[in-house]
Parts: sequence; C-alpha cells; structure tokens
Amino acid sequence: MLRQFSKRINVNAIRARDFAQLILFRASSSDIDKDKFEVKINQTNETFELYEKKVNIASGKLKKFEFPFVYLRDNCQCEFCYHAQSSSRTLSWENFDVSIKPKNFLFDDSRNVLKVIWNDNEQHTSEYDYEWLKARNFSIENREHYLKTFYRPDKKLWTKNNFKSILQNFDFMKIIETDHELYDWLNCLAIHGVAIIKNTPQTENEIRRIAERVGFIRRTHYGEDFTVKAKEGASNVAYLTAPLQMHADLPYYHHAPGVNILHCLVQSKSKGAENLLTDGFQIVNIMKQDHPEEFEALSKILVNWYDVGKEESGPPFHSILRAPMFCFDYENKIERINHSIPQRDSFFTASVEDVKRWYKALAKFIELIHREAVEFKTEEGTILSFDNSRLLHGRKQYEDSAGNYRHLVGAYLDWDEIYSRLRVLQKELKKKY
Amino acid sequence: MLRQFSKRINVNAIRARDFAQLILFRASSSDIDKDKFEVKINQTNETFELYEKKVNIASGKLKKFEFPFVYLRDNCQCEFCYHAQSSSRTLSWENFDVSIKPKNFLFDDSRNVLKVIWNDNEQHTSEYDYEWLKARNFSIENREHYLKTFYRPDKKLWTKNNFKSILQNFDFMKIIETDHELYDWLNCLAIHGVAIIKNTPQTENEIRRIAERVGFIRRTHYGEDFTVKAKEGASNVAYLTAPLQMHADLPYYHHAPGVNILHCLVQSKSKGAENLLTDGFQIVNIMKQDHPEEFEALSKILVNWYDVGKEESGPPFHSILRAPMFCFDYENKIERINHSIPQRDSFFTASVEDVKRWYKALAKFIELIHREAVEFKTEEGTILSFDNSRLLHGRKQYEDSAGNYRHLVGAYLDWDEIYSRLRVLQKELKKKY
Repeated sequence: MLRQFSKRINVNAIRARDFAQLILFRASSSDIDKDKFEVKINQTNETFELYEKKVNIASGKLKKFEFPFVYLRDNCQCEFCYHAQSSSRTLSWENFDVSIKPKNFLFDDSRNVLKVIWNDNEQHTSEYDYEWLKARNFSIENREHYLKTFYRPDKKLWTKNNFKSILQNFDFMKIIETDHELYDWLNCLAIHGVAIIKNTPQTENEIRRIAERVGFIRRTHYGEDFTVKAKEGASNVAYLTAPLQMHADLPYYHHAPGVNILHCLVQSKSKGAENLLTDGFQIVNIMKQDHPEEFEALSKILVNWYDVGKEESGPPFHSILRAPMFCFDYENKIERINHSIPQRDSFFTASVEDVKRWYKALAKFIELIHREAVEFKTEEGTILSFDNSRLLHGRKQYEDSAGNYRHLVGAYLDWDEIYSRLRVLQKELKKKY
Repeated sequence: MLRQFSKRINVNAIRARDFAQLILFRASSSDIDKDKFEVKINQTNETFELYEKKVNIASGKLKKFEFPFVYLRDNCQCEFCYHAQSSSRTLSWENFDVSIKPKNFLFDDSRNVLKVIWNDNEQHTSEYDYEWLKARNFSIENREHYLKTFYRPDKKLWTKNNFKSILQNFDFMKIIETDHELYDWLNCLAIHGVAIIKNTPQTENEIRRIAERVGFIRRTHYGEDFTVKAKEGASNVAYLTAPLQMHADLPYYHHAPGVNILHCLVQSKSKGAENLLTDGFQIVNIMKQDHPEEFEALSKILVNWYDVGKEESGPPFHSILRAPMFCFDYENKIERINHSIPQRDSFFTASVEDVKRWYKALAKFIELIHREAVEFKTEEGTILSFDNSRLLHGRKQYEDSAGNYRHLVGAYLDWDEIYSRLRVLQKELKKKY
C-alpha cells in the first residue's frame, strides 16, 4: 500500500532541488479557503518553512512554522515508522541519516497534509497533517503554551497574607464520582500546592479510595497507608504528641514522595494539634533575593538526610540521601526542598567552613518559614493534601485524653502519576491535544 | 538526672574563656593510655579542636579533629535533644542559637567522652563519645571514607572489552536464604550496574520473591511485576518480537525505576533474542572527552519523554518528563541517562537550532552505545538484573513458534531501597558504622 502511494506522489510532486528557496503552490486570493498553506525550503537547506496564508491575510503578519528535516523524518507517522497502538516510534536509528533531505515535497491542500519523499535509497514517503504540525511548531509562543497548558500547570506561590484566597475545598464523593472534581482538585494541588477535601466518610479505607482515583499509593519503607497516632515505642517522631517541627516528609529518599494526603478521623479536643503550612518555594525566592549568601549555602552544601529503624511489618531500613536543602530542576528552577530536623544525619560530610555557614543559613530559613506559616486545625472528615516537595508542614503539640485519641490516616502520591492523570482528564474533559 | 550530672561537671570543668587557645589536660608520656585526648578551642572561637595524642606519638603527626560548636550543640545526644528509639533529633530549632559557645568543657579520659556545658540560659550539658566524634570528623579522608564505604559503593565503569571480567553470577536460593549472598549481589549491582542470578525456580512468582528480599517492587503505571511476551494489541513495543532498540526503561518518569530484574522463564529457540547491554556512563565519559559539543547538547537540551496508553488492568496514562538525555547529580556527576526511541515524544519543546544539534548528538551517542554493546542470550532460570539509570539495554529480533513462546517476567526495584538494604546488611555482616 505504501509503495502505491509513493508512486502516486512521485508523479505529482515537484522536485525539491528545483524549488528550494521558492514558495510553492501560490494560491490566488480568491482561492484562499482551498490553498491555505505554502511550504518552502529554508536557505540553510536543513528545514522546511510552512506558511499559514490565512493568518497572513487576517493579521497582516506572515505566520511561519519551521521544521527541521531530521525532525520530520524522525517523526514519520507511517505504519513502518510509528506504532500507533502504543503511540511509539518504531523506525530504526541504527542507520538513521541525520543529514537526510527531501527529494520531493508538496502541501496537499485537499487533505491539509504535507507530503515528503525523502532522498534515501528507498525514497521513503511521509505525510504530516497540518494540525499535527501546528501543534508541534517550534515558535517560542507555542512551546510555552504547550508547557503551561499541557505539560504541567504553572505554580502560583502564596504567602501567609493571601493563603485564605488560594485555599480551595473539594468534595470527597464528587471526586470519587466525577472527573471534573478530580481534575479540579489535582489542578489546584499542582498550582497552589495545597487543597482540602471535605465530607470524607469516617473509615480508614478512604485514603486508599482517593489515591486509587488518581493512580496508586506511593509505597515507602513505612508501607502504603499509615496511621498517625501517638504511640509507645514510636519508630518516627510523627508518632509522638510533642510538637512536630516544620519539615518535608522523607527527604532521605532520592525519590521522595510528591504529595501527602492526610485524612483526619479523630481530631484532638485539647489545645494544640494545629497544622502549620508554609509555601517553601516562596521562601526560596525571598532568600534568593534578600539573603543571597544563605540561599547559596542551602543550594550548594550537601546534607545527609537519613532514617534508620524498623517498622512493625517490614525489615529494618537505613536510608540516606546526600542532597542540598534547595534542589533545582534541569532549567534551574526550584523543584524540591529538603528539610527535617529529626531526619538530618549527625554524619555531615562537608568541610568545617561549609558546616558553619550552612547552620547560619538554616537559622535564617527556619525564621522565614515560621514567619510565613499559616495555622489551622483540620476537622474530622477532612483530607489535607499538599505538595511535599514544595510545602513545609508541622503540627503543634497536643494531649490525648480518655476517649479522645487523635487519629489520622495518611498516604503518599507521586507527581508522576498525578500529572499523568491530569493530562488524561484534560484530554477527556477539554478535548485538547 | 541531667541536673545532677550538670552540677558535677560544673565543679570539675575548666572555664572555656580562660583556656581558649590552650591545650587542656596535658598528659605525661607515661600516662598515655589513660589520657589519650586533648581538646581546645580554635582561634576562630567557633570550633573545638580535638587531638588524638596516641596517633601523634605513633606517627609523629598530630591528628586533629575540628568540630564547630553549632554542630555539636545541634547533635547533642541527651534524651531531651535526641530520641534514640527513632534515631531522631528532637531539640527545638525555633529558638536555636547558632552562635552558641561552650561555657565549660573537658575531655573525660575515664569514659572517653567530651563533656560540654553550653552558655545558654539553662547551661545545657552535652556528652560526645570519642568514637562517635571520630566517625563524624570533618577531615577530607574521613568524609571520603564514609561516602565510599557506607553511603554508596563507588561505581566501576566497564567496556565491551572487560565485560566478561566484571560479570558475576549469584545463586537464587542463596540470595533467598543468606544475607551474604544478598549483600554480594546488591553490592555487585551497585558497582558494575549488572549481575546475573542463576538457578531460579521456573515459576512466575520468583521475581517477587527476590524483590521482597530487597524491599518491595517499584510500582509503575504498568503495575508491579509484568510479563514480557509477544502479543497482539501490544501497549508497549517491548511486547513485540521486532528488535527492541537499545534504551532505558521509563524515561518519562521523574522517578524512573532504578533497577530492572528480568526472569527468563522460556527463551526463544529461534535465531535472535540476544540481550544487548552497554555501560552508558562509560559512553557519557567518552563523549565528554572526545565529543564535547555533542556531550553538551545531550546534557543541556531538554527532550520530552512520554508514554501514552492504557494497561489492561489500569486506567489510561499520559506520562511526560522533560529532561535532557544526560542528567547529573548535585555534585555534577552523571546520575541518569534517558534514552528511548519509542518513548521520545514528537512534541519537542526546543528551538529549531537546538533540535538540529540535538539530533546530530543523538546519532553520535547511538553509534557509541552500539560500538560498546555486549551481546548474550540469557538462559532459562536466569534473572538478569541491571541499573536502569546507567545501562542501556536492547533485544534482538526473534520468532516465536508453536511450543516455543519466549516468556519473561520482570519488575523494578528502586535504588533508595537497595542502598538502604545494603547499609542494613553491611551493619549486620561487618559490624561497621
């Protein structure tokens, strides 16, 4: 079938070498709806230029999309090069020619398709739908649009002052039953790093139900879901009634869990037990601006985060991660904060000078996270969800009493699964991309 | 109890302010076994200096350990500052004074303990065992020793030429039954990135048994353990008999799985089906040295890795990670390679110029990973385990036939759990740290 098609194109196509630098298939102005696009070869002889003539006429600007030949050959959508069922590229790169050029090409206005015959031995033929090309065009605007609207929502940082305006409530059963509420909750969590789920049934299994709406619970050496109650012989300081200083969970994991979900089954009637929350990325920005030396120390000096112990049901563990407090992504944007007073190792593998300046920077950081901390007591039936890579959280001291034992059930979710679910829902709900 | 102790020290201790810069408690040479250590305050008035006199006499060199006051105060081991049961620091940092100084101090030779009374309002008292201090001393040698012998074993890179000399076999039942074999397997995997397990019973459950000796299976959107068989309607190109080009698994996960374990239940009797393996970190080194422009392109230009589809048992997924092919850790050492021809997105959010130079660099990388690839066919009863962040793996084409359907069962492990298990085993087996 491909061979037949290939022959047909050969007859109609115009030879690229004769038309490089020239705009092909010029349409008369009366013919605009039919012949909407023009294609030519860029003077580098490495890319196609594709012009959307309609936009040109409407705005007075010539909208040009540029596509490297090598990119188009690599992304041929034919059944030999692309396995549609698994959305996977199947062409072989063992003998791939990165200098490949088109032998012939044309824009088929009747089907809105760019057709290319390549100059390899087989004269392989590719077709690219105009909408497919447009969505992938390399303009800065398009790339930014794609990243913000589909890759990951942009984060909006908050302070103590505007926390109330960003905090949103979602309904447990609506999340279970509707994709809209699920999408809105996860989108809010991605943007603001915190969201509340109300009206959760009072059983220990609800945290698992909500996690499975997203994907699955992220397991750690503490298991999957876990109970937070004050107890004797605690393997973790979170299982004490003493104040839980502000921290991020599990900084000793290279793959630290992305999101905490904490279901309040029984809240303490005593004074205390309030949650503390701070948008840590906001603090990083403040430190970068106002305390550059401390910012630098917390960004560069590696600390050993650790956890050593044994859970009832599991084997012993001795986790260590050597990482700075502030971790940045591949574009040098803050992506994770490590901070935990209990889970910071007494093995500190840095120089004496670095150790001294690191402690001074830590003190500044702790001062700022307390200055910007919001305080609230979650109600029974509430799930508090927050971004563990971004927010610092803590809990004030409380007292259990006869008949009133504070009781939470918690679990973790990973951002990999959350972003994946958001994209699937976005496609379902909004029919984009 | 603490108060009593504190009083006793006060009587015997010498006031720090009078003795800064002076060596305290000088011992006569005949008294060396009893009075082994000296302590003084450094001229910065920010650190203690601790001298091991025995070493001094034996080697002619004065062995000096320096400990910042702030570090020691932060790491006070008393029951108020440290919760031994959970190995967690419990002192409060809300009012912690990073400028804290000792009010009094001495080295108690009878118990090998440094005692410090701090100059805070409560005159808090701390004790530090000499062995505890020595293990944590900040000398470069000690830090390097700690990192190499306990944090993570040093990786040893290999090439096609010396692969046979580094490939080690381990016995399935010995791993299940003895901690020595478990330790040796995981240690080999950490150092060389590849290890073979032989004599595995021929059931589909063995991969889970071996994973649970380490910790637990790393779950992904493909589930926990998975079956690799050629099948109709494949959701992933790995489930085809066509050649599987060299790649790393799941590059679209921010938290990509650390280790692949693949149990060969039925091997193909046809020509083909050989595994291909390359030590990718070796290739990164070669490119850095010999092809700096290509190295730079693959280190800096972000690519969209993706996987879109649906597994039989799970909800749909649409994973994307935007990351370079070569990813570096906090000390700028290579820590992960992303490479997968099928799972590279046609959305490539880079500039046209970057796209062009990225493809040229990719071609060089693929040339080199094939040049350095080793080739072998795993036998039935073998588990192939390898580091998915470091090695590239592939599989040659094969043919299933009546009565001979190639059949593997695979799963992933995370390095977080493997390193944790290695440390626990090291402590058990070698009584170190």
